[in-house]
Order: sequence, then C-alpha cells, then structure tokens
Amino acid sequence: MAKRLLSGMQPTGMLHLGNLEGALRNWVRLQDSYDSYFCIVDWHALTTVAEDPSNLKSLVREVALDFLAAGLDPAKCAIFVQSHVKQHAELHLLLSMITPLPWLERVPTYKEKRENLNIESASYGLLGYPVLQAADIMVYKAEAVPVGRDQLPHLELTREITRRFNFLFGPVFPECEALLTEAAVMPGTDGRKMSKSYGNAIYISDSADETAKKLKTMFTDPAKLRRGDPGHPEVCPVFALQQLYNKGETPWIEENCRSGALGCVDCKKKLTEALNENLAPIRERRQVFASDPALVEKALEQGAAKARETAEETMKEVRAAMKLG
Amino acid sequence: MAKRLLSGMQPTGMLHLGNLEGALRNWVRLQDSYDSYFCIVDWHALTTVAEDPSNLKSLVREVALDFLAAGLDPAKCAIFVQSHVKQHAELHLLLSMITPLPWLERVPTYKEKRENLNIESASYGLLGYPVLQAADIMVYKAEAVPVGRDQLPHLELTREITRRFNFLFGPVFPECEALLTEAAVMPGTDGRKMSKSYGNAIYISDSADETAKKLKTMFTDPAKLRRGDPGHPEVCPVFALQQLYNKGETPWIEENCRSGALGCVDCKKKLTEALNENLAPIRERRQVFASDPALVEKALEQGAAKARETAEETMKEVRAAMKLG
Repeated sequence: MAKRLLSGMQPTGMLHLGNLEGALRNWVRLQDSYDSYFCIVDWHALTTVAEDPSNLKSLVREVALDFLAAGLDPAKCAIFVQSHVKQHAELHLLLSMITPLPWLERVPTYKEKRENLNIESASYGLLGYPVLQAADIMVYKAEAVPVGRDQLPHLELTREITRRFNFLFGPVFPECEALLTEAAVMPGTDGRKMSKSYGNAIYISDSADETAKKLKTMFTDPAKLRRGDPGHPEVCPVFALQQLYNKGETPWIEENCRSGALGCVDCKKKLTEALNENLAPIRERRQVFASDPALVEKALEQGAAKARETAEETMKEVRAAMKLG
Repeated sequence: MAKRLLSGMQPTGMLHLGNLEGALRNWVRLQDSYDSYFCIVDWHALTTVAEDPSNLKSLVREVALDFLAAGLDPAKCAIFVQSHVKQHAELHLLLSMITPLPWLERVPTYKEKRENLNIESASYGLLGYPVLQAADIMVYKAEAVPVGRDQLPHLELTREITRRFNFLFGPVFPECEALLTEAAVMPGTDGRKMSKSYGNAIYISDSADETAKKLKTMFTDPAKLRRGDPGHPEVCPVFALQQLYNKGETPWIEENCRSGALGCVDCKKKLTEALNENLAPIRERRQVFASDPALVEKALEQGAAKARETAEETMKEVRAAMKLG
C-alpha cells in the first residue's frame, strides 16, 4: 500500500510562480506515488485574518483552481477544504489537552508572526497554530509531509505530539517525516523574493499579456542601462527566471548579456515567450475549470468525502484509545 | 417560544448530595420552563485527567444515571454527551481565533487549577477551557446558564467572546445570562464541604444501607461526647443535613440536642430515615435505568440528536457570517 502524504496551503490569495515551483509541481509528481491529501487550510487562514476574512470562500475557490491548473488530479489525490472535514477540529481539541503550553510558546514562527502582524495581543488560536497543523497531519495518519525548510520546527512539534499521544494512549499514530522541498528562491519583478504582500508576483492566473506587461517593467542589473553596456547576469532577477524557464537558451543569453550584445528588452522578450509557453498548459487547464465552477465544486466534494472517510477511521481509533464515547 | 438554557457537568465521578442540591434539583425545575440542554462535558474532563482518562466512558454513563435519577426527563430536555456533538469542537476552534490570549491568562480559575494540579506545565487545552465553555453555550445560542457563583468569571468571558464575535461578524449570538444557583454549602461526613476528593461524600448512587453506615460515623459537635451533654447544633454537620432533609423535626431536634436529651446516635437515626425517604424515589429511578443500559443509551442518543440539530443550525449561520464554506 502506498504511504499516506499530506500537505496544505493557506487561501490567503492567488498562487504565484513561487508557490508553483516551490510546492505545486512537486505535489503533482508526488500524487503518483503516494496516497495523497492536499488541503486548502481555511481555518489556518483565520489565525491571521480572523478579523476580516473578507472573502475566504472565494479565495478558497481560486486556490482550488490553481491546484487543478497545476495538474493535481482529483482521480489520483484528495483535494479538499479543511473546514469541510470537521474531524480536524475534533482532533485539534483532543491534542490541545496533551500539548504543554511551553512547547507552543517556544515555536519560532509564533513570535515572528506576532511581531509581523503588529497586533496588540495574539489570539489563543495563533498560539495553537501548530496544534491544528498536527491535527491536519495526524488525522490522516500521514507519514510523508512535503514542506519547505521554514516548516521544520512545526513538523518536529507534530512528531513530539505524536510521541506523547502514543505514550499516553497507545500506538495510534505513525511519526511523520518531512519531504524537504529544496526550491531555488523565486525572484519577484522587483528583485526581492516573490511574495503576494510585496506586489511583485506573477500569478498562475495571470494571462500571457499580463505576464508580458509585468516582465517589461521587471528589475534588471542596475549597472546595465542600455544595450551595449555589459551586464552581470548573476545579479539580474530576469536572468534567474531565464535559468528556470528558458534553460536551453541560458548559455547564449549569459554570453551576450555580458558582452553587451543582448539588451534587456530583447532578453525579456525571450523570457516572456519561454515563460508563457511553459505556463500555457497550466493556464488552459485553469480556464477549463474556471469556466465550469460546478466541476471545481465536484472535485472539492469528492476530495472532502475521501478525506472525511479516512479521518473518521482515525478518529474512531482515537476516541477508543482515549476511552471517550 | 421558551428561552434556551444550557448547563453542564464534568464526568469526573459519581454525583453526590452537593451536586444534587446545588445543581440537579434546580435543573429539574428549570426543564419545565426553558428549552433545556444538559451536557455531560467529557472533553472538559480531559483538561485535568487527559493523561489518565481511565474510564471516561463509564463515568459518563454513571453521571447520565444520576441526571435521570434526579428527574431530568428526556422528553422535556436534551441530556447528552459533549463529545457526541462535534459542533462544540468546531465552534471552539473558530472562537479560538478571536479570543485574545490575555483574556484567558487572567481567568482566576486557570492559575488555581494549575497550582492544584501540581503539574509541571499547563496544557494548551487547560488555558483554553473557557473558550470551550463559551462554545458549549454559544453553539446552542443559550440565553440562560444556571451556574454557581464560582463560574461567573467564565460566564463573563463567554459574554465578552459573544460581543467580539457579533462585532466582527454580525449579530449571530445572544448574550447569555447567569441563573445564579444560591445553594447552602453541603457538609460532608467529616464536616468539611462535601467533595469527592475528600472522601466525605454521600452519593446519589449509594444504597439506603450505605447511607446509614456513612451517617453513623459522621462528625458531630465535638463538645457533645455522650447523650446528656448539651449539643451545639450550629456547629454540627449532622444538624445542617437535618435542616435540609428533615425540616419538620428540626425545631424539636434543636431543642433536645441543646438540652442533652437527644443523643447523636438517635439524632442520626432520624436523619437517616428522613434522608433515605427523601432519596427513595431518586434511587428507585436510578435502579430502573441502571438495570436497563439500553434505556440510558437511548436517552443519550435522543439528546445528542436534538443537540446536533440545534448546534448545526447555529454553525450554518456562523460559517456564513465568517465567510467560510
């Protein structure tokens, strides 16, 4: 039997190239070899946007479109919304009873988030974020969790909670393992890391024209002001994207940028073509699903049904182990 | 339409006369005039016994027997187990996102419990106890909550969370009101407050003989060593019980205790008779239900079905207000 795998993404906005290359493409590969659960974690989004979840419901649909566009296949994996599977909330409550407060207070992302949010006081739920994350993973008895390096402390906490549960109530849960995703940093149009909050992102949902427009104004080597000036590809964010999306032409581009023969305008045209060609099948799929919302709902319902069935099996064992009922 | 009422009790042990006179009799009166929900809060019990919930399931059944014995009528009110209604866990999670940590850290019972438990570190769930309590109440939109004075800070927190939710997401919840239960302190057999943990309790489930035996060794006025010695009813725990269960004879008993004419042995015989007579119908009912576990299960299932229906109605409104779904 294939190992169980879970990963999730917050519906805090449209997904961009950073999400695509850093997570989604990897998930698409993994769905063939794991019993895979991909979760849009809307309850988690409440830890930071609770006071104005302006339109969580429609954001969830956009993220689902991005999942499907990237190539996640409802016939191969469960694509679902966290809040459609109440067992996450039940297990979260039960795990909260065995998770010592200091374990949560020492989580590095907690202090960080508190400070970044610029809020007067953190909510109880923000402190408990890693407990909900543990529940997300454990409720499927997931053994493999594809994550970025920044998520490792959370995953270690899930493993600690797993060991504590098993010690107290018997061996119900496997200890999950991280499948580390080592993706190159994706530069945004201003040269900083691509991020929704910087306004420098190219979205999966952008059209070919919108992409062209964004690339036109993208930052390049500041020392290369016009064609003829020698460029420094190693500091140029456009060149970083060429390496990702236009590998074949990269040696030629590097040479001619350095010599000055290739100007930034032409270089960007090449990137635009390559990137739009690369994204074409993804965007086509997105269009198909976007024009048929019932198809997306069906995928999410099918995913939730499968997720609920697996989660309920786990919860039956959990309730018995804890002598509830 | 009758106002909605909720109250709950932890299944931490058999219920005793203190529980009967301090809560249950009051609930039995209230079930006639309120749309009443009486909840055995097994998830709450985990905040203190999580590491050894030795037999929560059977304790829950004993408490259900005590509820039914006292006169709660499944035809008039919903008697149910908290963990059978998952909506409590879902609302708990959602409320956790809008409850500032300092609100919880300042709850007086939290520090107290931490110290009494003699634990190394509190769990996340112990800190969140009042959030779960708020969910218990709010998920039924309960307007009336019969509680003892010690629960008032928790109830005030529920009202604060209610106001915050309504402010952020619209007026979904009514603000609940306390129905203060002012019961005389019930003395245990050693003269201290009756409590399971002191081993000084007379249980609803005790037989008439067990009750007689417990009363035989009950503490009395220490200055009255034998019949003939003048007694001081105001310091005698047996006299306190006479006042509760043998009102008619109390003036005579007081007079003859003070004069010395009435000895403690005879005084206790009178109490035993009166108490056993008072408890007889309750014990009979307990016997009927105890000998037919299916009847108890049916009552709990019926109660949970009603509770789930009401709770799910509330949750639909909550999810819509928070734009989840």
